[in-house]
Amino acid sequence: MSLNSFGHLFRVTTWGESHGPALGATVDGCPPGIKVDAAALQHWLDRRKPGQNRYTTQRQEPDQVEILSGVFEGCTTGTPVQLAIRNTDQRSKDYSEIAEKFRPGHADITYWQKYGIRDYRGGGRSSARETAARVAAGGLARAALANLAPEVEIRGYMVQMGPHRIDRERMDWDQIEENPFWVPDARTAEDWAGYLDGLRKSGNSVGAVIEVVARGVPAGLGAPVFGKLDTDLAAAMMSINAVKGVEIGEGMAAAELTGEANADEIFMGNDGRPVYSSNHAGGILGGISTGQDVVVRFAVKPTSSILKPRQTITKSGESTEIVTKGRHDPCVGIRAVPVGEAMMACVILDHLLLHRGQIGDAGGRIG
Amino acid sequence: MSLNSFGHLFRVTTWGESHGPALGATVDGCPPGIKVDAAALQHWLDRRKPGQNRYTTQRQEPDQVEILSGVFEGCTTGTPVQLAIRNTDQRSKDYSEIAEKFRPGHADITYWQKYGIRDYRGGGRSSARETAARVAAGGLARAALANLAPEVEIRGYMVQMGPHRIDRERMDWDQIEENPFWVPDARTAEDWAGYLDGLRKSGNSVGAVIEVVARGVPAGLGAPVFGKLDTDLAAAMMSINAVKGVEIGEGMAAAELTGEANADEIFMGNDGRPVYSSNHAGGILGGISTGQDVVVRFAVKPTSSILKPRQTITKSGESTEIVTKGRHDPCVGIRAVPVGEAMMACVILDHLLLHRGQIGDAGGRIG
Amino acid sequence: MSLNSFGHLFRVTTWGESHGPALGATVDGCPPGIKVDAAALQHWLDRRKPGQNRYTTQRQEPDQVEILSGVFEGCTTGTPVQLAIRNTDQRSKDYSEIAEKFRPGHADITYWQKYGIRDYRGGGRSSARETAARVAAGGLARAALANLAPEVEIRGYMVQMGPHRIDRERMDWDQIEENPFWVPDARTAEDWAGYLDGLRKSGNSVGAVIEVVARGVPAGLGAPVFGKLDTDLAAAMMSINAVKGVEIGEGMAAAELTGEANADEIFMGNDGRPVYSSNHAGGILGGISTGQDVVVRFAVKPTSSILKPRQTITKSGESTEIVTKGRHDPCVGIRAVPVGEAMMACVILDHLLLHRGQIGDAGGRIG
Amino acid sequence: MSLNSFGHLFRVTTWGESHGPALGATVDGCPPGIKVDAAALQHWLDRRKPGQNRYTTQRQEPDQVEILSGVFEGCTTGTPVQLAIRNTDQRSKDYSEIAEKFRPGHADITYWQKYGIRDYRGGGRSSARETAARVAAGGLARAALANLAPEVEIRGYMVQMGPHRIDRERMDWDQIEENPFWVPDARTAEDWAGYLDGLRKSGNSVGAVIEVVARGVPAGLGAPVFGKLDTDLAAAMMSINAVKGVEIGEGMAAAELTGEANADEIFMGNDGRPVYSSNHAGGILGGISTGQDVVVRFAVKPTSSILKPRQTITKSGESTEIVTKGRHDPCVGIRAVPVGEAMMACVILDHLLLHRGQIGDAGGRIG
Repeated sequence: MSLNSFGHLFRVTTWGESHGPALGATVDGCPPGIKVDAAALQHWLDRRKPGQNRYTTQRQEPDQVEILSGVFEGCTTGTPVQLAIRNTDQRSKDYSEIAEKFRPGHADITYWQKYGIRDYRGGGRSSARETAARVAAGGLARAALANLAPEVEIRGYMVQMGPHRIDRERMDWDQIEENPFWVPDARTAEDWAGYLDGLRKSGNSVGAVIEVVARGVPAGLGAPVFGKLDTDLAAAMMSINAVKGVEIGEGMAAAELTGEANADEIFMGNDGRPVYSSNHAGGILGGISTGQDVVVRFAVKPTSSILKPRQTITKSGESTEIVTKGRHDPCVGIRAVPVGEAMMACVILDHLLLHRGQIGDAGGRIG
Repeated sequence: MSLNSFGHLFRVTTWGESHGPALGATVDGCPPGIKVDAAALQHWLDRRKPGQNRYTTQRQEPDQVEILSGVFEGCTTGTPVQLAIRNTDQRSKDYSEIAEKFRPGHADITYWQKYGIRDYRGGGRSSARETAARVAAGGLARAALANLAPEVEIRGYMVQMGPHRIDRERMDWDQIEENPFWVPDARTAEDWAGYLDGLRKSGNSVGAVIEVVARGVPAGLGAPVFGKLDTDLAAAMMSINAVKGVEIGEGMAAAELTGEANADEIFMGNDGRPVYSSNHAGGILGGISTGQDVVVRFAVKPTSSILKPRQTITKSGESTEIVTKGRHDPCVGIRAVPVGEAMMACVILDHLLLHRGQIGDAGGRIG
Repeated sequence: MSLNSFGHLFRVTTWGESHGPALGATVDGCPPGIKVDAAALQHWLDRRKPGQNRYTTQRQEPDQVEILSGVFEGCTTGTPVQLAIRNTDQRSKDYSEIAEKFRPGHADITYWQKYGIRDYRGGGRSSARETAARVAAGGLARAALANLAPEVEIRGYMVQMGPHRIDRERMDWDQIEENPFWVPDARTAEDWAGYLDGLRKSGNSVGAVIEVVARGVPAGLGAPVFGKLDTDLAAAMMSINAVKGVEIGEGMAAAELTGEANADEIFMGNDGRPVYSSNHAGGILGGISTGQDVVVRFAVKPTSSILKPRQTITKSGESTEIVTKGRHDPCVGIRAVPVGEAMMACVILDHLLLHRGQIGDAGGRIG
Repeated sequence: MSLNSFGHLFRVTTWGESHGPALGATVDGCPPGIKVDAAALQHWLDRRKPGQNRYTTQRQEPDQVEILSGVFEGCTTGTPVQLAIRNTDQRSKDYSEIAEKFRPGHADITYWQKYGIRDYRGGGRSSARETAARVAAGGLARAALANLAPEVEIRGYMVQMGPHRIDRERMDWDQIEENPFWVPDARTAEDWAGYLDGLRKSGNSVGAVIEVVARGVPAGLGAPVFGKLDTDLAAAMMSINAVKGVEIGEGMAAAELTGEANADEIFMGNDGRPVYSSNHAGGILGGISTGQDVVVRFAVKPTSSILKPRQTITKSGESTEIVTKGRHDPCVGIRAVPVGEAMMACVILDHLLLHRGQIGDAGGRIG
């Protein structure tokens, strides 16, 4: 019932507020004997860290992760792993305005209506900072996957920023790390840089679509009917701040296809495993992985904190106008790329453990 | 860890195979004192029932629900409610072909790879028949909502079939029950009838998009960060057979908007409650309901069972061709409408109970 | 959050009332490929069935279990197994008295205070009939254990009835099935027969202590700190009707021992596995199985329904006297023996699956 | 599935090892608006803290709790509360002996067999230090209870040490805080002091029985059949280190009673609430609270770390002898008193929230 927890056997609970003393993830159910240390997790956190280029918030947080438990002499012990990140850039700014006014598009008003109290500093629990904890947990999941299913490779990248989509013909994964947008195409990266500079200067923001692919996922992960692999992926991605849509494989466009066009035909591969003529299914049939690439996309809405004045109300119900000053992301979707990867890693590992526990080696062979 | 269960406090476990003796839903956590009987649930099941017109499978199942426990003298008692539906149309057809061949786009191959055994008759557990159990449970959730939050109204309807979208200008909820497609517009219904007749005759099928709206949901339901209302809705809808995408409010299109365009500005209404200039958010901010309409859409892929021959393999790994004969839906999305409504009802009730338990009346007022 | 569910990966949800149409168990997470049929489960139900001798209630229920899902061609498929038992002996007796009066020692008053409604017929959900569903689920767990860990043997027996304890020197498991009390000693069985006849005739009842032993449990099952094997066993046994105490190994008597006396010293056995000088620990250290016999005991209070008049109140708050007529057990502990075994089987299987999932073969060897 | 978590709506996950950097509790589901600060929690931790008198381990740990999240301006916000305690007394002693040898009665051998790796320093995760985190979480539960159910009072005390039981005639709660044993009787405290001094000097240890009582618990908390109040209490207490038995009300002794003797007769009290002639039931009927005192007892085995040499084996399977030197408790049961209270507070609060969520005000009145 832990509403701040995710996962079945690999269970991640995130905690902490944007401007409290610390935030982190309590990870229960990590298998023992996994080689991991703070540096390995830091690698993933650094990819998400803000303030690294002019396209993300200028807040300076080292986001240094500390492992407080569950790791002994460089290996997990099977007990809970506590990953903590101290908040350091708690700038003593004046929060009196947002303490009283609800920012449109933010959780300010709903937290107030739900709880009757909220830590308004920097968005408190609803801040995108919460996702740092997920990235740390995702790093642990990746370490476990490296051990248990080394063939699994997880990559996230942007496929759309505002109205601009990537050209899939030019897609090149080697480009992903080469530009500030995690876009798998150098030319698109250049175009987007200009586009985003314009938006940033005008104090506006824009949405994005991120795609996350898991290669090498063995067939058979996931379970009917509420523990489907795609169900858990949908929940994982939708739980990320600002996400408004999630797609598996063909996604919403599946509605436009005929059954004939949508069918991924099946053949036997040279290695004795089934191969498919296409991957409309996104690697999942009936909630269970097929062995093809698992493909998820999610849309991130534009940052709500913008320099444009918007109408809103105060706690006492008075109409007012608000301009959200301060350090913000013109396209918060950029930082969502490592978060999407982290969630994918957690889901894949979780279902790997579930499968091992519930099924063992009872699965069927073909041929 | 029950992978066939859904919900936190209102917990639904579905069970049963398409051609086994029965299927149903075990519902734990329904509040006591809710007036309900089999007839009330049957009303919702009848809406989903196949064979009612030429656009859904001609399988004839009465789908008669029986309440085996948890209801006494016409009221729920607070103990588990067992809802069972006997399978009657277990036509003694020849299943030897699909016992050996994997139908493309179906769960045949993944169930086999996962479990090493599968009830292939009619798709077994992966059959859309499983959703009858959800509709029964959703009927119970509606009965509880009628008691606990009578202002909540839930409506589902089709907004897209293949490439054809509804005209939102002409949307009229009164039309929903007047046509076989649950489409809120008489003219569209007519157009789709012709389109689908053509598809059906050619043995093909097509996908669809369903929208489900919950009106009158009080502000404050849902919880950060993994128990968000939208997280649970995404999981709920993605768990329905053949669903490939889920959207909240603006959905995937949020990626194309600027922050300025996307902001739902806030004003005070005459009744002392906040009103919004628009509903890009789909009634949810930070995972918590705003009091606006909660709006969810999901895409259903085209039925995979079609009369067009497709390439596939057998269990022994041989290449072959398959044509899925039998009774099937040219647009399985039609029957998904009552299922989407049922899942919405379950999620809203569940979060209403959670809120009552965890927050009570601690929520904040405005003004 | 399902309060009628038990288990982590092997998850049992019982449902149904004593005098409703049916009761049963929804079992999710049973591994696939387990050979089982209704007859195999019936074997265990018949052991628990009332009316088999003069020491248990004369209610005549065939307690015929039906498998409604999850089994195909004699094997589990990995999908939920629905086990249903129709209630047949719904004698149209007059329940008007117990509808109004609260029987002392019964759940009548608390169900009313909690729910504001209760199915008073035969105790409704609080009836010992609920345990029939557990025995059915336990039968399934045994079938899975027979497949996954055939060396596990589970035996329950009575070790105390009223003030009379068994003589452990004379303990002989072969005697357990030879007498109506499941007592592992023929002479004690005879003594108890006389004692219980006396009680029965006087309309009184008495409590009992049951011991359940699991032999052959591999070392390493269970997990710190809230998922301990003993924690789950304590919950399992305490959840059985009328149970008031649970002990592991030395149990409450551990309080009287010194550390010196209590230590189970460790040696290497001839088969390369550790052996212990004694088993004060009851086969569990730090919540994890040692490989010794897992030993649990639980005390069942005397049946509250007796022919002696007792003071009570009515729903309207008036003082009154009550005599519970009808068919009742002079020692309800007798029928708890198969129930305790069933719960043990469920817990052991559950932790076996958990261990397989979370740990795999990472466990340490000795020597 | 979090095996280090406890509770349904008020969900506590403890983490951390005895000699790692820190340990603590992640508490999810604490209601918002509860006044609490570190000092309030410290009060309870100080009661459990070792080294306060000669009867508990001389390890010097300040056990200073820090609130890292979920509290803002002195009140809970409804988001996860992270309670962390740094380990300071990580004495650089030589652990090479216990790294190789398994201490009898300890979790050394089972952790090794399960995980293949263990943090042997001070017992790692299996150390009684883990209970400090529970006491911190229990302090939070008490703060919430003070707000939501101020009439609830929770008291724990020792009722047996070794063979010596308290005289219930002389029981006086005011004495509990006046002696190092939390024994509710001054004379017994004196007797036990002498007894324990003798044991301590001889390097031996002894077990104990602790009783925890919750007064003022409203009728109606708990739920059939696996979420019974007594089921959760049994699990809560059995999960504490070294506990081997749990009793509710009459406990194991219920086996010796007749139905006539065991029945708690019911009368109407002057305040319009039911009163009972006795409390054999320990305040719980059918898993639901009656409004009487909720009474739980649990037995703690003697500390396994003693100065007496015991036979054991090494990781490599060789026979050896071990004497556990260092700072240990002659009766670890003493420190279990505040832990039992903490678990009681967590369970009562949890069921209060559950009842509020699932039942609301649907409960029945009497009279």
